[in-house]
Amino acid sequence: MAGNTFGRIFRVTTFGESHGTALGCVVDGCPAGIPFDLDFIQSEMDRRRPGSNSLGTKRNEADEVKVLSGIFEGVTTGMPIAMVVENRDQHSKDYSAIKDLFRPSHADYTYQMKYGVRDYRGGGRSSGRETSARVAAGALAKLFLKSKGIEISAGAVEIAGIRAENIDWNDRNNELCCPDRIAYESMRKRIEEARLEEDSVGGIVECHIDNVPVGLGDPCFEKLSSVLASAVLSIGACKGFEIGEGFDSARMRGSLFNDQMRMDGDRPAFLTNHSGGILGGISNGEQIVIRAAFKPTPSISRIQNTITKDMEETTCLVKGRHDPCIVPRAVVVVEAMCAIAIADEYLLSEAR
Amino acid sequence: MAGNTFGRIFRVTTFGESHGTALGCVVDGCPAGIPFDLDFIQSEMDRRRPGSNSLGTKRNEADEVKVLSGIFEGVTTGMPIAMVVENRDQHSKDYSAIKDLFRPSHADYTYQMKYGVRDYRGGGRSSGRETSARVAAGALAKLFLKSKGIEISAGAVEIAGIRAENIDWNDRNNELCCPDRIAYESMRKRIEEARLEEDSVGGIVECHIDNVPVGLGDPCFEKLSSVLASAVLSIGACKGFEIGEGFDSARMRGSLFNDQMRMDGDRPAFLTNHSGGILGGISNGEQIVIRAAFKPTPSISRIQNTITKDMEETTCLVKGRHDPCIVPRAVVVVEAMCAIAIADEYLLSEAR
Amino acid sequence: MAGNTFGRIFRVTTFGESHGTALGCVVDGCPAGIPFDLDFIQSEMDRRRPGSNSLGTKRNEADEVKVLSGIFEGVTTGMPIAMVVENRDQHSKDYSAIKDLFRPSHADYTYQMKYGVRDYRGGGRSSGRETSARVAAGALAKLFLKSKGIEISAGAVEIAGIRAENIDWNDRNNELCCPDRIAYESMRKRIEEARLEEDSVGGIVECHIDNVPVGLGDPCFEKLSSVLASAVLSIGACKGFEIGEGFDSARMRGSLFNDQMRMDGDRPAFLTNHSGGILGGISNGEQIVIRAAFKPTPSISRIQNTITKDMEETTCLVKGRHDPCIVPRAVVVVEAMCAIAIADEYLLSEAR
Amino acid sequence: MAGNTFGRIFRVTTFGESHGTALGCVVDGCPAGIPFDLDFIQSEMDRRRPGSNSLGTKRNEADEVKVLSGIFEGVTTGMPIAMVVENRDQHSKDYSAIKDLFRPSHADYTYQMKYGVRDYRGGGRSSGRETSARVAAGALAKLFLKSKGIEISAGAVEIAGIRAENIDWNDRNNELCCPDRIAYESMRKRIEEARLEEDSVGGIVECHIDNVPVGLGDPCFEKLSSVLASAVLSIGACKGFEIGEGFDSARMRGSLFNDQMRMDGDRPAFLTNHSGGILGGISNGEQIVIRAAFKPTPSISRIQNTITKDMEETTCLVKGRHDPCIVPRAVVVVEAMCAIAIADEYLLSEAR
Repeated sequence: MAGNTFGRIFRVTTFGESHGTALGCVVDGCPAGIPFDLDFIQSEMDRRRPGSNSLGTKRNEADEVKVLSGIFEGVTTGMPIAMVVENRDQHSKDYSAIKDLFRPSHADYTYQMKYGVRDYRGGGRSSGRETSARVAAGALAKLFLKSKGIEISAGAVEIAGIRAENIDWNDRNNELCCPDRIAYESMRKRIEEARLEEDSVGGIVECHIDNVPVGLGDPCFEKLSSVLASAVLSIGACKGFEIGEGFDSARMRGSLFNDQMRMDGDRPAFLTNHSGGILGGISNGEQIVIRAAFKPTPSISRIQNTITKDMEETTCLVKGRHDPCIVPRAVVVVEAMCAIAIADEYLLSEAR
Repeated sequence: MAGNTFGRIFRVTTFGESHGTALGCVVDGCPAGIPFDLDFIQSEMDRRRPGSNSLGTKRNEADEVKVLSGIFEGVTTGMPIAMVVENRDQHSKDYSAIKDLFRPSHADYTYQMKYGVRDYRGGGRSSGRETSARVAAGALAKLFLKSKGIEISAGAVEIAGIRAENIDWNDRNNELCCPDRIAYESMRKRIEEARLEEDSVGGIVECHIDNVPVGLGDPCFEKLSSVLASAVLSIGACKGFEIGEGFDSARMRGSLFNDQMRMDGDRPAFLTNHSGGILGGISNGEQIVIRAAFKPTPSISRIQNTITKDMEETTCLVKGRHDPCIVPRAVVVVEAMCAIAIADEYLLSEAR
Repeated sequence: MAGNTFGRIFRVTTFGESHGTALGCVVDGCPAGIPFDLDFIQSEMDRRRPGSNSLGTKRNEADEVKVLSGIFEGVTTGMPIAMVVENRDQHSKDYSAIKDLFRPSHADYTYQMKYGVRDYRGGGRSSGRETSARVAAGALAKLFLKSKGIEISAGAVEIAGIRAENIDWNDRNNELCCPDRIAYESMRKRIEEARLEEDSVGGIVECHIDNVPVGLGDPCFEKLSSVLASAVLSIGACKGFEIGEGFDSARMRGSLFNDQMRMDGDRPAFLTNHSGGILGGISNGEQIVIRAAFKPTPSISRIQNTITKDMEETTCLVKGRHDPCIVPRAVVVVEAMCAIAIADEYLLSEAR
Repeated sequence: MAGNTFGRIFRVTTFGESHGTALGCVVDGCPAGIPFDLDFIQSEMDRRRPGSNSLGTKRNEADEVKVLSGIFEGVTTGMPIAMVVENRDQHSKDYSAIKDLFRPSHADYTYQMKYGVRDYRGGGRSSGRETSARVAAGALAKLFLKSKGIEISAGAVEIAGIRAENIDWNDRNNELCCPDRIAYESMRKRIEEARLEEDSVGGIVECHIDNVPVGLGDPCFEKLSSVLASAVLSIGACKGFEIGEGFDSARMRGSLFNDQMRMDGDRPAFLTNHSGGILGGISNGEQIVIRAAFKPTPSISRIQNTITKDMEETTCLVKGRHDPCIVPRAVVVVEAMCAIAIADEYLLSEAR
């Protein structure tokens, strides 16, 4: 009946529905004295925003972040930091078409069955708009991590079956955050095709976490891999998670997979990083590499079979302009969730 | 510094090292009045035990479960249930070869760096033997779930690149819990080859959870998919997790992926189950299907490069008989972790 | 570094400083379908508000509650409910007198030492104004409890050494919520005397919780008495807590203290309620009775010795009009915290 | 349905019934590298043990602690530390007299109603014997705190209405841990009288925590006072808690209560310590002083009215030798719970 909080020390609580008064987050446990850069937080919000690229939906929300607490004279005070984004346009639409039926592969059915009541306006809390609060909190986590030298960057490495193969990670400054210029063009084309055919496509986001010190994560149930998985798989539409070689590791032999060690001057180093930066649940100082699979957007402008709230068969046609692919916007959300998880683990690792 | 507890209502705390006095678990929050079937719990332990199949290591531990608390006149009392397994043979071996160096792709390095001290005997807490406590707790969770009609079953669907393709899920009664008789033979062969070549292989475990009521899981951070992922990725050697179509969903179009609905008599039903039983983070009443990728066993009898505790380069050769493939034993551990997670979610869903 | 969340199922997170932009709360885990009565919530806020009685400070804040999420068509939806109260007047004052020194028996010194930074305006987060968010969340908890028939009522039973002795619990409709008309007059007089002498006084709040079903609370660390104590002692200025006979029980013999049982028709009943409604940590169906001691307001308009942020001795004189007694306003806060704790326990008790 | 775990970083989980196989604890989150002194832990167990003084019950349990995990080469490893105490004599008694009725002011009634089943042998989990696991965990917490210079000491300051008034805190080496030699003699006499009259008495335990650094505790719900209260009120038979002046503070004026500050050389100091070492929920570097009230032992050898499991009125007479006063044994349990709480807060305060 709950579950809107993530983290044990750096704790993020979010709230808000797509067409309610406001969405927001409360970040508890952020250390005091961190310079608070509202412009950076707003710029992260802008990366996630619908309409931020030519491929997404055209909803024009400013998504302006307003800070309610926890900041004084430009720095964090150790007190909870509340940030909200108001919904400007929440009263305008007509939802009679979806009010009483369950859109296929949306949360409509399960919310109705679990709660007996459901804010159907724009999907309510199950809307992708819920992630705006994660991005605000994640941006704050990034500010904290930056003070420790830790950096997080994600990109789209596969969309609609097109894989990024000639990867230049630093060259992702395009609408898909795709690190392969050639693949980028093909991906765009596939997304456009899907849109024209009133369909949608999915994809895979990869995230790199750099400069993580050795020692984050715990040996048993709270392995760093487990914590990152729970962070990333809590994002709507995410259906898979892997770390390092991931599913490919199941096809490798130990003699190939094992990351042998050597000394790099006076620092321990690894010959390879098939493990993706985590050994025995604990960061080993190498780059952490994770990937997340996203299903195609469930909203498509095609007639589909479904049932009504009163348990009668019907068909539905979800009108309106929808993202044919949410992957570009998921990129910043994956970064945000990884940032929150790593900030939490960093602080937790100091408790000894 | 912690992290040895899983769950919020049905809470499992484990302890113990490979060559310490004993391993065990404390299960808190198990409802009162559940008939306690020690024989069943012991039979689950036997499924996990080394030496339980002809392919695994030959360590001969009885893994006999002893119950310390929480049971009275044959039923659970609502009080914490402690179960322990004593280590019979813990003083016998010579660990001088691995005491001062870090075995590649083991947790040796990260434990040493995080804690400054490490029980190197048999891997200490990072040993696969740690999972015996999970299996005991998972068996108890299964007893609870059985009283609600929920069943959990896992099998090896891929080993060393061999996929189970002609699947008969009810015919997994073989040493690999493989649901494909033909693939089973090939898998066995590949494992034997790896053993002869002093190497190891990985694989993929699939788990089915049947008869889950609609409504388990929460909408935001504690989506059922997120909770199952954290449960499964907390198992040592697990490198990937997916639900429903998983990574394949990234390559599907919405028109194909979406699970349309209809009525089956007076019950809502889905035409397909690409979502794997979870919508918007909440169970939808369909079979839950997840898969977990396991890397090849890191212990191989080959010379590998590594460094010592004193930061000097060296080589190591891990002697002794090791499992060339941990997947068969991981099957029961995946079941156990899923059982614990679902038991916890079931109880949590009643708090409304 | 955190600690701004209370509860396990019915979870309340609060934020905000006395002179920041806004204070508020996020309530996660409130069941769906509870009729949301904003007028009731506002009326609870009005009970707590400074200036709500002739004895308190004259700060004129409307404390108007604004709901941001979690309510749809007049009922709770099961989603997190965010409520905020804006600070209207936050920029007006001159804090140069207290900016650099530590007011005696305030949190100034410990906040500065712990966080290295401190929002000194009006006490920042350590202000009594922080409790407004608790009252909003508590009012919501009361709405939930009302749907279960549970009622919570508190009153001032001692102020400045004057005890309420001829108690008529239903006649507390006075500025002190004092259930003894005669004592009330004496208490008022003592408070006025303290004000005239630029001093302050403390007192004791008693709270009754009626119609609690048998079975709330857990046997070990989360005894209901322990949970209520942590709820109430988390209120600023609270220095003591007791349940049932409390400290007096230390002076009673077992033959007097023990609550013997009998049948009342077909219902079990107790001959006495010295235990205050809790046995072995679990509610026994009797009225729960707790008391909380509050110290005198630390802000007094007298010269006191203290030190500066730079560790130099100085004196301070806290100017402005302060409550000479916070007990009347603490009454509604004690109710709120008890309501939150009982709502949480109620939901938790269903998880079996 | 749970609640057998205390703490967030230094986490203690306990289990076990009075007449089950064993009682014990698992301590998770204890930092690595702490020298493990089993003799000290055993000596703490001996302080709590029945029969350890001439006034208590004569049950002769060795209460020998056995360590199952988490210790290697004489130090903690950062892994969970499981400790158990076996019950030697658990099968011997005849419980037919109390099996089917509810002993007054015991947990029998509430356990039966909440769980529907109850281990009635010696009170099961609600037995005072449950505290042995707390004492083992608390002893470990003390070892950790000792490494930080923090010391915890408790004593009986009131028994059966006799107050310790001429206190020499360092002279508590008597059977009651009473810091007043004269009062000690009177207390003993009162306890003996109660025993002869087949009755029981209660009392008050005071606990001092020395050398706590400034900065433990959080500003809002997890004030150090709240955490200590929840720790201490989780002990069976505890009915009240106060900090510093406690309930007396309700009768003091601010001008008397406020702890003014000065410099002591280059260190901040307080002129008084009415606050008991905590300001705004955070330790201020002064001695922390708390008191806990314990009710008289409920087991008395007198005929009392009660009801049976089948809801029929009856009388009961609890036979056997019982402690006429549990306060002497509560002293070490209060110390243990304070040690656990402070160890947890110490570690938590490092997470910034």
